[in-house]
Amino acid sequence: MKKFLDDNFLLQSKAAQRLYFDYAEGQPIYDYHCHLPPKDIAEDKNFRNLTEIWLAGDHYKWRVLRTAGIDEKLITGDASDYDKYLIWAKVVPLTLGNPIYHWTHLELRRPFGIKNTLFNEQTAVKIWHQVNEQLATPAFSTRGILTQMKVNTVGTTDDPIDSLEYHKQISLDTTFKTKVRPSWRPDKVFKIELPNFADYILQLGNVTNIEINSFEKLLFALTKRLDYFELHGCEASDHGIEILRYADIPTERKLNEILIKRLNNQEISELEIAQFSTAMLIWLGQQYHKRNWVMQLHLGALRNNNQRMFKILGPDAGFDSIGDRPIAEPLSALLGILDLTDQLPKTILYCLNPRDNEVLATMAGNFQGSGIAGKIQFGSGWWFNDQKDGMERQLMQLSQMGLLSQFIGMLTDSRSFLSFTRHEYFRRIVCNMVGHWMENGEIPADFNLVGTMISDICFNNANRYFSK
Amino acid sequence: MKKFLDDNFLLQSKAAQRLYFDYAEGQPIYDYHCHLPPKDIAEDKNFRNLTEIWLAGDHYKWRVLRTAGIDEKLITGDASDYDKYLIWAKVVPLTLGNPIYHWTHLELRRPFGIKNTLFNEQTAVKIWHQVNEQLATPAFSTRGILTQMKVNTVGTTDDPIDSLEYHKQISLDTTFKTKVRPSWRPDKVFKIELPNFADYILQLGNVTNIEINSFEKLLFALTKRLDYFELHGCEASDHGIEILRYADIPTERKLNEILIKRLNNQEISELEIAQFSTAMLIWLGQQYHKRNWVMQLHLGALRNNNQRMFKILGPDAGFDSIGDRPIAEPLSALLGILDLTDQLPKTILYCLNPRDNEVLATMAGNFQGSGIAGKIQFGSGWWFNDQKDGMERQLMQLSQMGLLSQFIGMLTDSRSFLSFTRHEYFRRIVCNMVGHWMENGEIPADFNLVGTMISDICFNNANRYFSK
Amino acid sequence: MKKFLDDNFLLQSKAAQRLYFDYAEGQPIYDYHCHLPPKDIAEDKNFRNLTEIWLAGDHYKWRVLRTAGIDEKLITGDASDYDKYLIWAKVVPLTLGNPIYHWTHLELRRPFGIKNTLFNEQTAVKIWHQVNEQLATPAFSTRGILTQMKVNTVGTTDDPIDSLEYHKQISLDTTFKTKVRPSWRPDKVFKIELPNFADYILQLGNVTNIEINSFEKLLFALTKRLDYFELHGCEASDHGIEILRYADIPTERKLNEILIKRLNNQEISELEIAQFSTAMLIWLGQQYHKRNWVMQLHLGALRNNNQRMFKILGPDAGFDSIGDRPIAEPLSALLGILDLTDQLPKTILYCLNPRDNEVLATMAGNFQGSGIAGKIQFGSGWWFNDQKDGMERQLMQLSQMGLLSQFIGMLTDSRSFLSFTRHEYFRRIVCNMVGHWMENGEIPADFNLVGTMISDICFNNANRYFSK
Repeated sequence: MKKFLDDNFLLQSKAAQRLYFDYAEGQPIYDYHCHLPPKDIAEDKNFRNLTEIWLAGDHYKWRVLRTAGIDEKLITGDASDYDKYLIWAKVVPLTLGNPIYHWTHLELRRPFGIKNTLFNEQTAVKIWHQVNEQLATPAFSTRGILTQMKVNTVGTTDDPIDSLEYHKQISLDTTFKTKVRPSWRPDKVFKIELPNFADYILQLGNVTNIEINSFEKLLFALTKRLDYFELHGCEASDHGIEILRYADIPTERKLNEILIKRLNNQEISELEIAQFSTAMLIWLGQQYHKRNWVMQLHLGALRNNNQRMFKILGPDAGFDSIGDRPIAEPLSALLGILDLTDQLPKTILYCLNPRDNEVLATMAGNFQGSGIAGKIQFGSGWWFNDQKDGMERQLMQLSQMGLLSQFIGMLTDSRSFLSFTRHEYFRRIVCNMVGHWMENGEIPADFNLVGTMISDICFNNANRYFSK
Repeated sequence: MKKFLDDNFLLQSKAAQRLYFDYAEGQPIYDYHCHLPPKDIAEDKNFRNLTEIWLAGDHYKWRVLRTAGIDEKLITGDASDYDKYLIWAKVVPLTLGNPIYHWTHLELRRPFGIKNTLFNEQTAVKIWHQVNEQLATPAFSTRGILTQMKVNTVGTTDDPIDSLEYHKQISLDTTFKTKVRPSWRPDKVFKIELPNFADYILQLGNVTNIEINSFEKLLFALTKRLDYFELHGCEASDHGIEILRYADIPTERKLNEILIKRLNNQEISELEIAQFSTAMLIWLGQQYHKRNWVMQLHLGALRNNNQRMFKILGPDAGFDSIGDRPIAEPLSALLGILDLTDQLPKTILYCLNPRDNEVLATMAGNFQGSGIAGKIQFGSGWWFNDQKDGMERQLMQLSQMGLLSQFIGMLTDSRSFLSFTRHEYFRRIVCNMVGHWMENGEIPADFNLVGTMISDICFNNANRYFSK
Repeated sequence: MKKFLDDNFLLQSKAAQRLYFDYAEGQPIYDYHCHLPPKDIAEDKNFRNLTEIWLAGDHYKWRVLRTAGIDEKLITGDASDYDKYLIWAKVVPLTLGNPIYHWTHLELRRPFGIKNTLFNEQTAVKIWHQVNEQLATPAFSTRGILTQMKVNTVGTTDDPIDSLEYHKQISLDTTFKTKVRPSWRPDKVFKIELPNFADYILQLGNVTNIEINSFEKLLFALTKRLDYFELHGCEASDHGIEILRYADIPTERKLNEILIKRLNNQEISELEIAQFSTAMLIWLGQQYHKRNWVMQLHLGALRNNNQRMFKILGPDAGFDSIGDRPIAEPLSALLGILDLTDQLPKTILYCLNPRDNEVLATMAGNFQGSGIAGKIQFGSGWWFNDQKDGMERQLMQLSQMGLLSQFIGMLTDSRSFLSFTRHEYFRRIVCNMVGHWMENGEIPADFNLVGTMISDICFNNANRYFSK
């Protein structure tokens, strides 16, 4: 029986091991999409204890705790950091089979160096003290961790009205080698149906000194902000799209009418929402194309299902799940319009429902070209699919229906500074899968050929794809 | 080459074998949802021959026979029991790869003790005589079989107007150790669109001595029956929902109007169906919560596809299949309303289309809590998914997106007294999967830790979950 | 490590190898659905070079080239055959993990005899000259290849107004042993929404000497053509259905009204499209039943997504993908109507979205019977699913939810005379899967029993199914 989490963890063949150690392990990390707070990096924050860096804000773990029947007081409530930590230690052994069990041990191993120890009630106390001591040292500040983990680039997720002050601050420090780039996330702009849309547009107007009272003025304000993001190193956008709408773009007069109605907090119809959303996404796509930014579309979440808890905790607290709306036709229409005038930017398509894998894997193929290798990407397993089975399914469909060799690989999408081991997790899974093909004679036993593909997926492809 | 169906059947590793024999095999069976007729148990029926206990009423087998091109006369027609048996013996070798091939041999092995014999035309005659002799003995009556198979509890499926006389009769016999509990299946109540809705409500009125002429009276009548079921040991409800509808609950006046229309056999709109269905399901859910019953939702069948055969054989005759309607949003809404007032009962979600596995696995996570471990369950592979691949997919998604350790495990959902070996089948599959993780170092090689989880899934979790 | 593409390619166990070599490899090919041009067979065409036979017209390869960032000029543009070939050789090593990598090497091995050589820039020049020499010889003409590959039957795909002159010509040559049968593909008839519907009906009128000005006249014209196809050996129909519509069939008067509107190029409603489509498909199904033809339904493509390229290259140029519309209910309704009067023909259901596998696998079970073994077939992995993972998923669902033993197996659906090795690919995959079951003791180690099933799937079942 193989030892749990040994050096060959998830690497079930000699070929897999050789691919991992010779071609994957040493690659730097290009984490092109995550939710790390730039403030914490700018201030080179140290965390007060393992609870703060590990449990606070991690809604994956909160869901697990609730499923295990733990009282909310010990999850997001006013229990002490130590009590929250201890209950977590008690629950971790119940997570066998869930990625949390792997992540937990991988994160203790790197950066904290804790090996050969199962995390549970018995071992928790000693770990608490050891890790807390480490966390107080410079090697375990936010920048310390990024450096230890060989993170080449981090792409944060930022609102168009964000001042990017922390990005500025970080970029001024030439001794810190990790590049921290903002990403443009304009959800509040194109989701005209949101209750606080008018407030948001008012803020956008204030930031840009533009009185936004027409669609043209809105675009003008956004252009100012796009330029500002460009100036501060932005190379990617991101969009969280729960309901993928499409409608033919109406006249500008109609768009103005829709906008004005919402600025006055009036109701608009489902068709009007779709018209505005389409017009805005198309215009944004054209802007990204012009600037050679990457467009990311995250499709298919069903958010805030639990209204009782939403009132207490707000969004992103572990009450989101997977939706099942059709996406193929509106997605084809949106990408098609951008492509028609050859203004489709490099695009990454992510789905939350893995049953849509094949739609995205083949949709990408419809819009490849323009001499850009892997221009349209089927993105890595996202959120609930960010686990062994989910990654394997994404990799399999990408392989069978597209080109694995052009894949830009893994991203953490995480809010935590401890999540970079997920790149290791992903790399082991890719190497295991491809190594298995080698062992079985499904691809040639040519390590140069295959290893190059592995290194490309781990780092080189992303590094090339995002460079402008 | 491994021998077919040997002791290590489906257990492909040493770890799997040890998990099965040390932690799974000896557990009693908690079959919390099935369709066994309580009358047969009350009367401790003996079956006249293998055809009666094995083929009569088993629409899984009927489908197989039709697919093999067998004449309906030999399936559900007036051919003799023996001729039906012989044609079945001829067809079984054509079922290689289908769970029927495994079930057939597992069922001959337990309870009948027939080993090392492939079932086919050649071996059928001898088996016919041997088994028929056994069936005439007390050890192979309905109670004999339940006892042999170590069935701790059976949850039957019962209509709200059922007298439960057989449950009463069974409970009076203190020498019979298997608990036989009724389950509340109110499909005819909330499916107001069904053609015989008015007739059914009339019967409900007669049973409860209530003139049902308003929504309030309907609830009053149902409360009486809920109390009656409670009195007779009911601890679970069940709902077969082909079309999962949701609409905001209208005023009581509107509900009365909808009800009265249907009691007069008038047509109602799709919206009105959804309004009534939602109001009824929410009220029922609140009742289950109050009584600490479990709510089971079976989602996504497409029934009675073959109208020609429906006219001849009626429902449940092998002409149902898998539907593909979206379910995420209405399901979120229904559970959300119950949860909003903290009246969501323990709930088990089953889907017939395995492409919905991930929706259900993550939907469960939205409503966990209240201090109940595994409160919302993603149910075991149902019907067409009650097979190796279907179970493995359900187990994998549950593991990756939820907590396998909290799973209440298998149920037969069967009409046959020979189906209890499906628990053995399930247990072997779980042990094989988890044992594989151990062998590969994906979980610790700690049999105490892992074996406890296995025993819990096999029996303890269900036993705890259903206790009140 | 197993050598790439050795004799045991994809056969991972001794049982798999024995099944393949003893029961599969020697079977002739019954390629019941493909898109080979009958003209090329009639004229016994020789190809001018490897580019013409391999790359021209192969939109699978074009997609791959575009994904690799290759300029369109080198794909479908005016670059020389040799330059197109060289760029292909450069890209093939980037297709590791895609079926193209396997197909490429399988096609070089058979019929060209090139073994132990990886195809890439280095090896391409030598192969170019060798293969081009072979292509100039009679053994590598279209008929030469069909004979070498032991193709028993080819089912081409033909328009109802096709003269079938080449089929006639081929059938006159008694020295050529491969049967080349036309298949009836009436897409332009039932897709009344297509812009050139009126033109097409005019052509149909001209071919049949019927002035088509009513639904009855249309059926009359089609009957003439059905008889004509029957006369020329047709035994199957095929339908490409992107949007599976169902509506109750209206009165003939209404059908006439809809038809006349479209013949005058007027718009019709979505409901009218569905009414006409349903009426036409039902009538066609009844005709197939009467003639004992097989009805094939290819469901779920999303075509011509890239309008920019469509204007340049037209359809079938590599810009199609997988759709995600629901299909269960309209499919049940269509098959149900045909079955109600016992006029449902033998039917093969194919889905492009593999998430629909389970719907089709179980839908087939609803309409089996009439004493025809395997009457309703769940068709082999189609198009994007015509690869190892796609085939395995189709085979697994068919096994678990239907009868693998009754499966009519593989078809190429290809436009290329080099695609017949895909039958080898399929056979290896089936043997590997079933051999794995044998090795694991999941089915008996009885090679006679299991081998018979393999031979049936490879050839006998299709040969029996299509014979009239």
